[in-house]
Amino acid sequence: MKVGVYTSGGDAPGMNACIRAVVRTALHAGKSVVGIYQGYQGMIDANFEEMTSRSVSNIIQLGGTILKTARCAAFRTAEGRQQAYEHIKAAGIDALIGIGGDGTFSGAEVFSREFDIPVICIPGTIDNDLYGSDFTLGYDTATNTVIEAIDKIRDTAASHDRLFFVEVMGRDSGCIALNAGIAGGAEAILLPEKSMGIDTLCSQLETAANSKKASTIVIVAEGEENGGAYKVAKEVKERFDFYDTKVTILGHLQRGGSPSSFDRVLASRLGYAAVKRLLAGESRVMVGLWGNEIKATPLEEVLNRKVFKLSEDMLEMMEVLSI
Amino acid sequence: MKVGVYTSGGDAPGMNACIRAVVRTALHAGKSVVGIYQGYQGMIDANFEEMTSRSVSNIIQLGGTILKTARCAAFRTAEGRQQAYEHIKAAGIDALIGIGGDGTFSGAEVFSREFDIPVICIPGTIDNDLYGSDFTLGYDTATNTVIEAIDKIRDTAASHDRLFFVEVMGRDSGCIALNAGIAGGAEAILLPEKSMGIDTLCSQLETAANSKKASTIVIVAEGEENGGAYKVAKEVKERFDFYDTKVTILGHLQRGGSPSSFDRVLASRLGYAAVKRLLAGESRVMVGLWGNEIKATPLEEVLNRKVFKLSEDMLEMMEVLSI
Amino acid sequence: MKVGVYTSGGDAPGMNACIRAVVRTALHAGKSVVGIYQGYQGMIDANFEEMTSRSVSNIIQLGGTILKTARCAAFRTAEGRQQAYEHIKAAGIDALIGIGGDGTFSGAEVFSREFDIPVICIPGTIDNDLYGSDFTLGYDTATNTVIEAIDKIRDTAASHDRLFFVEVMGRDSGCIALNAGIAGGAEAILLPEKSMGIDTLCSQLETAANSKKASTIVIVAEGEENGGAYKVAKEVKERFDFYDTKVTILGHLQRGGSPSSFDRVLASRLGYAAVKRLLAGESRVMVGLWGNEIKATPLEEVLNRKVFKLSEDMLEMMEVLSI
Amino acid sequence: MKVGVYTSGGDAPGMNACIRAVVRTALHAGKSVVGIYQGYQGMIDANFEEMTSRSVSNIIQLGGTILKTARCAAFRTAEGRQQAYEHIKAAGIDALIGIGGDGTFSGAEVFSREFDIPVICIPGTIDNDLYGSDFTLGYDTATNTVIEAIDKIRDTAASHDRLFFVEVMGRDSGCIALNAGIAGGAEAILLPEKSMGIDTLCSQLETAANSKKASTIVIVAEGEENGGAYKVAKEVKERFDFYDTKVTILGHLQRGGSPSSFDRVLASRLGYAAVKRLLAGESRVMVGLWGNEIKATPLEEVLNRKVFKLSEDMLEMMEVLSI
Repeated sequence: MKVGVYTSGGDAPGMNACIRAVVRTALHAGKSVVGIYQGYQGMIDANFEEMTSRSVSNIIQLGGTILKTARCAAFRTAEGRQQAYEHIKAAGIDALIGIGGDGTFSGAEVFSREFDIPVICIPGTIDNDLYGSDFTLGYDTATNTVIEAIDKIRDTAASHDRLFFVEVMGRDSGCIALNAGIAGGAEAILLPEKSMGIDTLCSQLETAANSKKASTIVIVAEGEENGGAYKVAKEVKERFDFYDTKVTILGHLQRGGSPSSFDRVLASRLGYAAVKRLLAGESRVMVGLWGNEIKATPLEEVLNRKVFKLSEDMLEMMEVLSI
Repeated sequence: MKVGVYTSGGDAPGMNACIRAVVRTALHAGKSVVGIYQGYQGMIDANFEEMTSRSVSNIIQLGGTILKTARCAAFRTAEGRQQAYEHIKAAGIDALIGIGGDGTFSGAEVFSREFDIPVICIPGTIDNDLYGSDFTLGYDTATNTVIEAIDKIRDTAASHDRLFFVEVMGRDSGCIALNAGIAGGAEAILLPEKSMGIDTLCSQLETAANSKKASTIVIVAEGEENGGAYKVAKEVKERFDFYDTKVTILGHLQRGGSPSSFDRVLASRLGYAAVKRLLAGESRVMVGLWGNEIKATPLEEVLNRKVFKLSEDMLEMMEVLSI
Repeated sequence: MKVGVYTSGGDAPGMNACIRAVVRTALHAGKSVVGIYQGYQGMIDANFEEMTSRSVSNIIQLGGTILKTARCAAFRTAEGRQQAYEHIKAAGIDALIGIGGDGTFSGAEVFSREFDIPVICIPGTIDNDLYGSDFTLGYDTATNTVIEAIDKIRDTAASHDRLFFVEVMGRDSGCIALNAGIAGGAEAILLPEKSMGIDTLCSQLETAANSKKASTIVIVAEGEENGGAYKVAKEVKERFDFYDTKVTILGHLQRGGSPSSFDRVLASRLGYAAVKRLLAGESRVMVGLWGNEIKATPLEEVLNRKVFKLSEDMLEMMEVLSI
Repeated sequence: MKVGVYTSGGDAPGMNACIRAVVRTALHAGKSVVGIYQGYQGMIDANFEEMTSRSVSNIIQLGGTILKTARCAAFRTAEGRQQAYEHIKAAGIDALIGIGGDGTFSGAEVFSREFDIPVICIPGTIDNDLYGSDFTLGYDTATNTVIEAIDKIRDTAASHDRLFFVEVMGRDSGCIALNAGIAGGAEAILLPEKSMGIDTLCSQLETAANSKKASTIVIVAEGEENGGAYKVAKEVKERFDFYDTKVTILGHLQRGGSPSSFDRVLASRLGYAAVKRLLAGESRVMVGLWGNEIKATPLEEVLNRKVFKLSEDMLEMMEVLSI
């Protein structure tokens, strides 16, 4: 068996640790491994490289992905996938392990069925918005990156009487916003999953002001309904004109950085399990963390089930703790 | 109801975030809260302070514990506990929340039964060695601290041909050593739970050397059988005299530092849950994380059940990935 | 002698370390010290607190300023200053040490002359834009904060084919932008001090693209002529439509964070020197770092001399190194 | 001209940033560059590699040295140097740039004279113990690494009543110890350059205890006269038996880590200047930072002048500020 491994979609910290685990576990089992560069684009371009144990030396601590990643429109066409298949076949690759998010998985699912090639997927996205794993690779690191930013802003916020808005990633998922908001002691959090208008926000801010909080920080997930941190800051400022508002847009720095211990261990376990399951004959599943166990879920189920990881409990707690 | 909150035993990152959660949740429920300084010693010394929402402002990000901690021999005597009870009663405290490890819990268990005072415990120790919670406060932060150290050592290890030994905390528990070892890409790990003599270690190191690894790092948990990093380094050096060996003893820096996002969220959830359960009439339980849920376990069970958090799977994986 | 110490203007990492040095050096010399909260506003409001050695315990590592800071319009009026003087006199304060930037210094200069009160100033601003000190407090920390952000963005930039824009502080001073740009390996830097239109920028980016750079990051100082990172990104995107551009606005997180070793040592030295010079009878000077020496410069000179800390050499080097 | 670049002796953060600057500056000037692996050993082994602009992509932020380093006994013999010269000549290398400490420089000095080959040296060592540069590469980063460790220990020290000893690098130079001690707010510092017996230390600790300091941390440079942190801790404990003492040995983690902004800018400037001076016909000099200027000093002078970078002022200040 020759295993092809690739990363696809948005990159996430821990992808390199996961590639390392896939490569070394497969080599240890006597299989050879080919790195596919730039995800599905690399299959279409035949952008391959034989991997040895040394190819993945000293990468466990690196952010990003040594295999690069790209979005690939061509792979959504039958012709594109046909070409990818021919290149893969020519290279002798007869099984795939793909690391990424739902776009990656739907590509893998279709491709595996069309060409009857076994594939195992691994959840790698900072958004933590996939069914079938309590945590996705990169989410823990991204949340730590956000709280380091909030901590720094808190220093200056506590020295002045100002209102700070921090925009974090999350088009459809408020996981980073909610958890980093709780961990950063934010006074309010605007999430994609939960409607909160400027009026409600302003009344929360008034409560904070009345309880003599020394600083006020609002976390704004990019997908929340009011249009992002700059717009929210502008509207709030118009209502409370005494406030001096300041905005930080964290942007893609949330995707980078050396992975946390949690993400590296998770990446190692998922990569190791993916190879084990591939060798055991499984296919079209995603390996994921359930409690302390690694389990596999059919890709179809992962793709079709909506997951809501923000419990009402957490939302309620957030309000209680920010008093 | 007036709730007394204290930290006891070794301090751990996240204790402050947890104190904050306890104080604010209780205040929000209309109860008052008293901070007890230096754990059981503070009960005996009547070292109390009324807590307000502002007492716990801007502490979520701080390592250590604002309530201090101490080991207290007097509390192990009936006289000591009697005195503690009288001070607590005089201060109007009629329920307790204690954050710490098994020493803290056994004190709490006895005290609660003797004087019929409700008590809820919260697992706070970097060792992650308690039954009843997948994770204890501080463990995630400590593991991150260790891998940052390993990453730095890896830089210099990869520039020279040297062998590095890093001693990490863990008298009886290899949790930090194993997970930081996996996350740091260590070539070998010596654990308290698993016997590994110098001979086996040397043969692992030879394998690593033969596979042309650019650097070699061995993690030594302080409680492993060979007597710590200095002794292990000395014995290894005697056998491989070509090796230049270097030792780092991380010591108590593993206890400090700003808590990770994971620890802050866990601390918030556990503190919040502890108050909720106290208000619901529970006592003599420890709140803990099971998968994604917060559950309570009787203190008696926590104290009597041995937990072994190192699965054979992880140990096996560690060897495969370090090739 | 009773010394009043205050921080004013924008806060900067190292201010707390500096307050600590001022307090302890004065106490050691047998003088008493009063902390003045919120800068000049605190003089007008008589917001004072006696400082002991313990008031400044465990603050050397904290960002922000425990004495808070505020901008104060009233102090620009003769009435405001009169009131400030009366409060200061009533509190027995007969000498001042002020930490801040040029706004702080001009207030101090006028006040000292009007009421014949000795004052020593200390340069505390992340912008590093003052004559009389090679470095100002907070600049080194802020630059480190920026490069950590750039490093994280580089991870994801190197995994995709994208163009990143990072907006950093600096309305009139490009010190942070240039140094963080060099240290972060940026492909281009837009500075307030040096005109660079979109055309020139685009041609630099084309050169970078042609040399097959794996990632491209542009640093945009907020005061540069094209209107900030969003505007620059939009214009560049219109010309190179194949590029996917991403923007990060670091904002006030650059002001926070634990001060670097450099800033803490500098803060200690400047605070120590300020008290020594006050005791030696000096007034209306700013203490600053010249090479490895601490020297004093008359406030008048600091305020009137324009400093240009970006040498042509550095600008030229920046271009050579980003090839 | 073909420039050979190498790193030698102990590695230091910033070496990679410096290699990048040397390579790109030389290429920009139309010269070719050869990387020499493992310092002088690599000359003897003809371990060379042609460097392109892409060879040094994305390394500015990495600790260690991509060119590796080694100590080399053979180069101290005439035969070894002869062999090195023949390999260098065969490879067409006709000028050298060496990054390292005094061992590196004396090798370079002899070799340059013996074979009439131009050589420029760059100070790269965390010890900051060389004449001719206010700062050496890696020193700023190492000091920051130490204060992060001290800050973490301070958290736990302030939670308990304990005495902590932190051993830092510095066999002959107390630069890291003194500056990190000041920046970390240490209560006492033991330096190689200044005798301090256990009696004096104990009386300082008593003063600290009497002034009710919440925590006590002693920095021990490895080269101080009492034999290192473990020995000092043991002796202190015997005298103050109420104290619980804890020891951390930072070891080689001080050599690693991503270089600070200061070190990256310094590395870039020194690498750039080294090439410029080589092209201008200079030889047998070390480039260094004097205030804000880059100047060159003859290697002979660097090697023969003793430098004492700890001013009495700093030592005095340290005591005043730790009260």
